[in-house]
Amino acid sequence: MSDKTNEQNPELKAGQFRALTEEEIASLPGSPGNLGRRGFMKMGALAGLAGVGGTLLAGCGRASTGEQPVSSKAPAPAATGMPEDHVAPGKLDEYYGFWSGGQSGEMRILGLPSMRELMRIPVFNTDFAIGWGITNESKRVLGENFPRGGDLHHPHMSQTNGHYDGRYLFMNDKTGCRIARIRCDVMRTDKITSIPNVADVHGLRVQREPRTGYVFANSEFRVPSPNDGRDLDDPKKYQCVFTAVNGDTMEVAWQVIVDGNLDNTDCDYDGKYVASTCYNSEGAVDLAGMMQGERDWAVVFNIKRIEAAVKAGKFKTIGTSKVPVVDGRHGSELTMYIPVPKNPHGLNSSPDGKYFAAAGKLSPTVTLMAWSKVDDYFAGKLKDPRDAVVAEPQLGLGPLHTAYDGRGNAYTTLFIDSQIVKWNIQDAIDAYAGKKVNYLRQKLDVAYQPGHNHTSLGETRDADGKWLVSLNKFSKDRFLAVGPLHPDNDQLIDISGDQMVLVADAPVFSEPHDSVIIPSRLMAGKIKRIWDRKDPFFAETVAQATKHGIVLEKDSKVIREGKKVFVYMTSSAPTFGLNSFTVKKGDEVTVVDTNIDDIEDLTHGFCLSNYGINMEISPQETSSVTFIADKPGVYWYYCTFFCHALHLEMRGRMLVEA
Amino acid sequence: MSDKTNEQNPELKAGQFRALTEEEIASLPGSPGNLGRRGFMKMGALAGLAGVGGTLLAGCGRASTGEQPVSSKAPAPAATGMPEDHVAPGKLDEYYGFWSGGQSGEMRILGLPSMRELMRIPVFNTDFAIGWGITNESKRVLGENFPRGGDLHHPHMSQTNGHYDGRYLFMNDKTGCRIARIRCDVMRTDKITSIPNVADVHGLRVQREPRTGYVFANSEFRVPSPNDGRDLDDPKKYQCVFTAVNGDTMEVAWQVIVDGNLDNTDCDYDGKYVASTCYNSEGAVDLAGMMQGERDWAVVFNIKRIEAAVKAGKFKTIGTSKVPVVDGRHGSELTMYIPVPKNPHGLNSSPDGKYFAAAGKLSPTVTLMAWSKVDDYFAGKLKDPRDAVVAEPQLGLGPLHTAYDGRGNAYTTLFIDSQIVKWNIQDAIDAYAGKKVNYLRQKLDVAYQPGHNHTSLGETRDADGKWLVSLNKFSKDRFLAVGPLHPDNDQLIDISGDQMVLVADAPVFSEPHDSVIIPSRLMAGKIKRIWDRKDPFFAETVAQATKHGIVLEKDSKVIREGKKVFVYMTSSAPTFGLNSFTVKKGDEVTVVDTNIDDIEDLTHGFCLSNYGINMEISPQETSSVTFIADKPGVYWYYCTFFCHALHLEMRGRMLVEA
Repeated sequence: MSDKTNEQNPELKAGQFRALTEEEIASLPGSPGNLGRRGFMKMGALAGLAGVGGTLLAGCGRASTGEQPVSSKAPAPAATGMPEDHVAPGKLDEYYGFWSGGQSGEMRILGLPSMRELMRIPVFNTDFAIGWGITNESKRVLGENFPRGGDLHHPHMSQTNGHYDGRYLFMNDKTGCRIARIRCDVMRTDKITSIPNVADVHGLRVQREPRTGYVFANSEFRVPSPNDGRDLDDPKKYQCVFTAVNGDTMEVAWQVIVDGNLDNTDCDYDGKYVASTCYNSEGAVDLAGMMQGERDWAVVFNIKRIEAAVKAGKFKTIGTSKVPVVDGRHGSELTMYIPVPKNPHGLNSSPDGKYFAAAGKLSPTVTLMAWSKVDDYFAGKLKDPRDAVVAEPQLGLGPLHTAYDGRGNAYTTLFIDSQIVKWNIQDAIDAYAGKKVNYLRQKLDVAYQPGHNHTSLGETRDADGKWLVSLNKFSKDRFLAVGPLHPDNDQLIDISGDQMVLVADAPVFSEPHDSVIIPSRLMAGKIKRIWDRKDPFFAETVAQATKHGIVLEKDSKVIREGKKVFVYMTSSAPTFGLNSFTVKKGDEVTVVDTNIDDIEDLTHGFCLSNYGINMEISPQETSSVTFIADKPGVYWYYCTFFCHALHLEMRGRMLVEA
Repeated sequence: MSDKTNEQNPELKAGQFRALTEEEIASLPGSPGNLGRRGFMKMGALAGLAGVGGTLLAGCGRASTGEQPVSSKAPAPAATGMPEDHVAPGKLDEYYGFWSGGQSGEMRILGLPSMRELMRIPVFNTDFAIGWGITNESKRVLGENFPRGGDLHHPHMSQTNGHYDGRYLFMNDKTGCRIARIRCDVMRTDKITSIPNVADVHGLRVQREPRTGYVFANSEFRVPSPNDGRDLDDPKKYQCVFTAVNGDTMEVAWQVIVDGNLDNTDCDYDGKYVASTCYNSEGAVDLAGMMQGERDWAVVFNIKRIEAAVKAGKFKTIGTSKVPVVDGRHGSELTMYIPVPKNPHGLNSSPDGKYFAAAGKLSPTVTLMAWSKVDDYFAGKLKDPRDAVVAEPQLGLGPLHTAYDGRGNAYTTLFIDSQIVKWNIQDAIDAYAGKKVNYLRQKLDVAYQPGHNHTSLGETRDADGKWLVSLNKFSKDRFLAVGPLHPDNDQLIDISGDQMVLVADAPVFSEPHDSVIIPSRLMAGKIKRIWDRKDPFFAETVAQATKHGIVLEKDSKVIREGKKVFVYMTSSAPTFGLNSFTVKKGDEVTVVDTNIDDIEDLTHGFCLSNYGINMEISPQETSSVTFIADKPGVYWYYCTFFCHALHLEMRGRMLVEA
């Protein structure tokens, strides 16, 4: 890639965009008649690709050649002489990272800059260590017949007036069509909501102003409505909806039918709009069809108008769902469709509250739009939605997501080029207006194939311009060999200076899609280290015990009601309140264990050998599990969280009479 | 803790051991009539505790006071000025760490010295990212009706002549009574064996000489035999067995009935013996009973004699199992019972092949025994098994496990003191023989409550004395708050110099029990980065395809056999071989997906929305899943491993006719 990529393509006039030609698309791997991957690699560069040399090939390492505007640097030791990611033993990280666990179904808490994984929070997955999917408390969250896993993409923290407020984290399950909420005080999933009338839930963001408020979610896969076997192979009748969930109640507030499908989403800083990219405006059901149009669009939803329509009863319901569904297809006054170059992906609002960017994916451009122009459109002052575009900088191949530093710069991932490109927003606007100005600041090689990126506080008014992470899908040769399945590589980049500096490579299990980065000072005092006995998470179990006349903090007793047996016991290192209990084969047994230790980190476990049961009981927590005692014999239960020098001796027997 | 702890208790003569008194045990938290945890803390020191000040309290942070022989140090930058755990972006770690995932049920691969987690290998858990527990290939390993998880404790690599040979890793599931094997070439679990006649599987080690060979496993929980409802509450009739599994076939070779129960185990370097600690020689079923005796024992198994007994038919079988079970209780010529101070835990052989150490747990001592004395015993030359003891150094409170540096030093974790104590083996032997010598070298504070520790190559002849990890059960204040459940803290310690130097704190999810540390050069060329199409892991699926006339590398076809539908397709970025397929409600559908990309790290996924199905398909791999199409409608499948700029477009439809 030559220095020419730093400048706008001279062939194009300001305001024009340049998408891939059909010939170029036909050459994409997987397209009919392509050259095959290896042949494609040898092509070197795709002629005519908006002046940008390179290939559209993924998964083949760096395809670009030649000089970079500024090439990547080895990490520069800070003033202390220590590498920037170094956090000495016993020292604390300065930032939290809340990380998607992708198809693992979990969320993760990282510390930055060390990039250490501090904790896994089970959400859509089952987890034997914690008993997630096993305990009654977790099943109340997961619901009946919960699926075996989920595909968690986008974790975002609740906001108040555009600032993180430390209440909740929200996230989506793409495959299971669900939205989950994690309580930040105990860092546990407390609600999971199934979204009706959709075939997946992809992009997710939270309302910033006045607060969260709404959690917005995109549906990507178009299906018949209702999806009950009708119109099976009649894609013209398929449809797609946008969803708003009430973040306080976790009930679905309303849905909007759209044209095309949706991908990523973000909202403004004024509480008025939320926008989504659409990469398949064609409504196609195969790859070739999804790439036909020269342009797709970003669709903007007018929140106030939608609320008014719902209030006025201008909605329908679908199938058995009672969720109000309004029509936001072309021609609706509820929505605005802004044409952007084909197959856009990321959508990101700038922290100054002025702009939102849609990344081009199949175009080397990012399209920057102004919220003020959206005001104009809905006020009838802007006729052509395309006039909402204020810049369309050419950045490189495969732009996917954009992050911000709060100092007027944007950072866009280039999937195909395996780079982060830093560009200046005002310069890009000026260039679009015809000024001769170079908006590109730097291109940094990342390793390899970046998807999402994220800056510290970059999705809030408080963007501090300190850290950027590049969530790279491939790691290839960056870590020791671990077999055919490789980790991803999440790279930490210091953006506090004029130049981006790569600080650390962090291997991660499949597959972080997105993350947020929050200074630990904002969470100070908000996270509990010991459970409150009155916590709602196990309140239903406490109520059941009260009905049985049990005081959980001291009683260890067995209560039988016909074939139902309730086994109440305490845990206090190194003993269970009961050394043994006896049931009959076929009994439905509910074990309720209360950890009466009140010392930080003194967690107990209850694991029942050969019964597939384990649960974690942290200090002052109550956990319970219900199962059928279907095997006669002696079955030992034991503590699974090492709690004491006599931890091995912390065990007891379930005697199951034949 | 004063400097006096550096010397032997002058009250005791060499060869004597000093366990806790009944009064001291009564004061343990959880014991009847104890002072309560906080009251106990205030006691400060237990008078008369073998001259060692401190408390027996776990989970309360550091209980010891006063000076250390050598106190812990802040990490010292290496000669380069970089901290020792710093691995610059793109540089590779020098060591692999294979880490227990505890009750998460998985194994983990770490890189050292960075302590980065490079990969999770699902073993006894289910994992949605990989489809472990979902794919047919994984179900063939897990078996029918596999439990929902497992409690993985001890991963150990196969050896040849006392050197790691890079073939397999073996590990146990305590709760599910299973042993698993991971193939190191593809880093995937390929065999899981259920152990009969046991109620758990705890300690696990592998035969060193001539090779692995046997995998040895301890059972800890005594139960009736067979455990089918008989003798329910008659603990005298309970029994416990020791198990040897053939590491090549993964079939159980033989079992030995023992007195008491077993805990940890290790074998010699000559292929003759394997030894286990027993912490409950009393055969009790409650805590008080398990602490009654002044001494418990280590039991040594004579492998040749056991093999001969089995060959001679001197065995029985239990219940429906066909495994030969020999009697190794007191009086048997197959075993040797060596009295050691009460409730021992860890058992570790020294890499010079001469000794094995049992840690005291409720005694401040470690008992060192000589394999040569075991020879003498079985040859009739040693009458009192206790005479196998060659040293019994007093080290501090709560000694659990011992590791070695290959330079004659041992490193023992002190759970209660939250320290690692370094001591010299020959000096301890000399002191035991009556010489005035200080065998203690250093005590290093760790944070907090260490269980297992492990040195690089320390369980082989190649112990290189470079790294020590201390697997600490509590992290308390060492990391940012993440809620009531805390991570463990695995600390990396440089032992290459005269003094141990703490290098890094690594937070880890619950709960690493054990690990091995292996230089990456030993694994060079042994780990594949792309699957071989002839790999046995999916050979059964390939055979099924062949029967259907399918060439997996090119065919994408649907084959129907009555209500069974076989859907064969390829994956090649960014397309599935089939854009759609149609089935009828109630059909049993088998999807077989072959990743025909052959580029490193270009993994695909097959995720079927709303059907709880996801599977990973790495380059050149075939994965398959079988399910009932029980819901009519359009269900999209999509790729879950970001593979290409058009990854989002890599999807297709399953049409389920009502």
